[in-house]
Amino acid sequence: MTKNIRIGLVGYGNIGKGVELALDKFPDMEGIAVFTRRNPEELDSKFKAVSLDHILDYKDQIDVLILCGGSATDLPEQGPALAKHFSTVDSYDNHNNIPHYFKEMNTSAKIANQVSIISVGWDPGLFSINRAILESVLPGGETYTFWGKGLSQGHSDAIRRIDGVKAGVQYTIPIEKSLEQVRSGENPELSTREKHERVCYVVTEEQADKKLIEKTIKTMPDYFEPYETTVHFINEETFKKDHKKMPHGGFVIRTATSGNENKQKAEFQLELESNAEFTSSILVAYARAAVKFKQDGKAGAFSVLDVPPAYLSAKTSEQLRKELL
Amino acid sequence: MTKNIRIGLVGYGNIGKGVELALDKFPDMEGIAVFTRRNPEELDSKFKAVSLDHILDYKDQIDVLILCGGSATDLPEQGPALAKHFSTVDSYDNHNNIPHYFKEMNTSAKIANQVSIISVGWDPGLFSINRAILESVLPGGETYTFWGKGLSQGHSDAIRRIDGVKAGVQYTIPIEKSLEQVRSGENPELSTREKHERVCYVVTEEQADKKLIEKTIKTMPDYFEPYETTVHFINEETFKKDHKKMPHGGFVIRTATSGNENKQKAEFQLELESNAEFTSSILVAYARAAVKFKQDGKAGAFSVLDVPPAYLSAKTSEQLRKELL
Repeated sequence: MTKNIRIGLVGYGNIGKGVELALDKFPDMEGIAVFTRRNPEELDSKFKAVSLDHILDYKDQIDVLILCGGSATDLPEQGPALAKHFSTVDSYDNHNNIPHYFKEMNTSAKIANQVSIISVGWDPGLFSINRAILESVLPGGETYTFWGKGLSQGHSDAIRRIDGVKAGVQYTIPIEKSLEQVRSGENPELSTREKHERVCYVVTEEQADKKLIEKTIKTMPDYFEPYETTVHFINEETFKKDHKKMPHGGFVIRTATSGNENKQKAEFQLELESNAEFTSSILVAYARAAVKFKQDGKAGAFSVLDVPPAYLSAKTSEQLRKELL
Repeated sequence: MTKNIRIGLVGYGNIGKGVELALDKFPDMEGIAVFTRRNPEELDSKFKAVSLDHILDYKDQIDVLILCGGSATDLPEQGPALAKHFSTVDSYDNHNNIPHYFKEMNTSAKIANQVSIISVGWDPGLFSINRAILESVLPGGETYTFWGKGLSQGHSDAIRRIDGVKAGVQYTIPIEKSLEQVRSGENPELSTREKHERVCYVVTEEQADKKLIEKTIKTMPDYFEPYETTVHFINEETFKKDHKKMPHGGFVIRTATSGNENKQKAEFQLELESNAEFTSSILVAYARAAVKFKQDGKAGAFSVLDVPPAYLSAKTSEQLRKELL
């Protein structure tokens, strides 16, 4: 297969590195350059490292930019600015702000006559697709999303900001009893506390007040207070040995009764040893879809819900019908 | 919501009846008529029953025809004939013949300037979507499909054709050990016998030779011979009490390693108390997509792989982004 889709990466954190690794497995795609706000010479990428200031010089050499920055500060700024010049794919995941971000990206992409696919990944992303398809084919039921077992970056950061904490991670764990209740088709109403619990592993400074740290974690509003939270204090070696991976996953479950009161259940599950690498790989597949949208003459912003499954594949429609239908 | 999508049903077997029931749960859709080859007066439908001979009189009253016939003889004949006049949705599931059927439907639909979505249901259908998406976002892995626990209509029919058999059903059951092997990411090569077993419940005539019947079942080529098959002889009351439902389900599992040898697993599961009612409900949702394709100015045949998830929903794109992304 010829490598006919030329990809640029913006940013070289977890997602950028994941995209670099993922591109090896996509036979029709080629990484051209990584654009960075840092000194390009400091980047250890196998792709050409280029200062973000010079990105417009690459307009003719790149088909799709994969925006690898975070949703808090990078994407709200970079997204609408870069979408004025390039087709883009990003993993914008600030759920509440997606309608606003979509509008901005849509305006930029239409100016550029390019395509921007936003909020790509697994949630938002594959989970959204499952929620949309399942509520459509099984109307009158209930959809539940559970996350975990997985490491939550935001909650781990919150722990690490506490005085006396040297290192810490937080795992979100779905509560098995509630999962089973949902799967049984009972359609339970579940409170926040009933859906997930939070388990923390913390390394403290030698003199730290562990009682106080534990209390500070457990009473932290929004992050931990609404949940059953467990805090384990561990030493640094254990931390390095057991808590360096970034696993995640989750469940989308829909149950409904159809016709003559027959119970129907559909469930989508993910179990990921590397959250970032999975998100990165999904981003690369959607870059392919962006190219197909351009070939269709489309311009503007789109979400994963607008993308036909076939557009993610390197196979032709004939192949897909023959092999996968 | 106004009922602005007008549906015609062709055929009134399990799927036709399922579509009739399902339509109640789709607030934007209305059943106009059931078209039948039987005497319309014999049909016990709440929709108007009309002889199939008069279907062309309804061209202006129907937006999408849902073809509820079987893949063996009904659809190969009715599909291409009706697609010359109506937009259609069908559940054509003869896997090997899908490319040919697609071509015929595409030709007809283009003559009519209408839209035909073929092979809608769960396999082909939702399972195909999962296979396509998952192999695209997790390249370099392996996809497995298991079916069951579920009642197989074709295999049950095969049992009932044996001399001395009064009633019989066959359940396809995925072999748990193989499922676990797949989930572990081992990428096993599984033979037919290793993936599924077949369990039969049979009611015989009083004088029947049970030994012979059991042997006839177990050695039946293609249907049973390649599998571990168990035959249970039961009496008629037990049969009526325990084996009147048509449950089914199954699993699509993809495992792959990404980037730095991290294991990733995605799985889609169905557990259905009524196979026919679920398929019917999916058909109705795809009728909605056919209408949207028409609004886009499209014509021709499409499969589920061509349909953006948003097209299945009664919600607007704005609502979907806000609620489901």
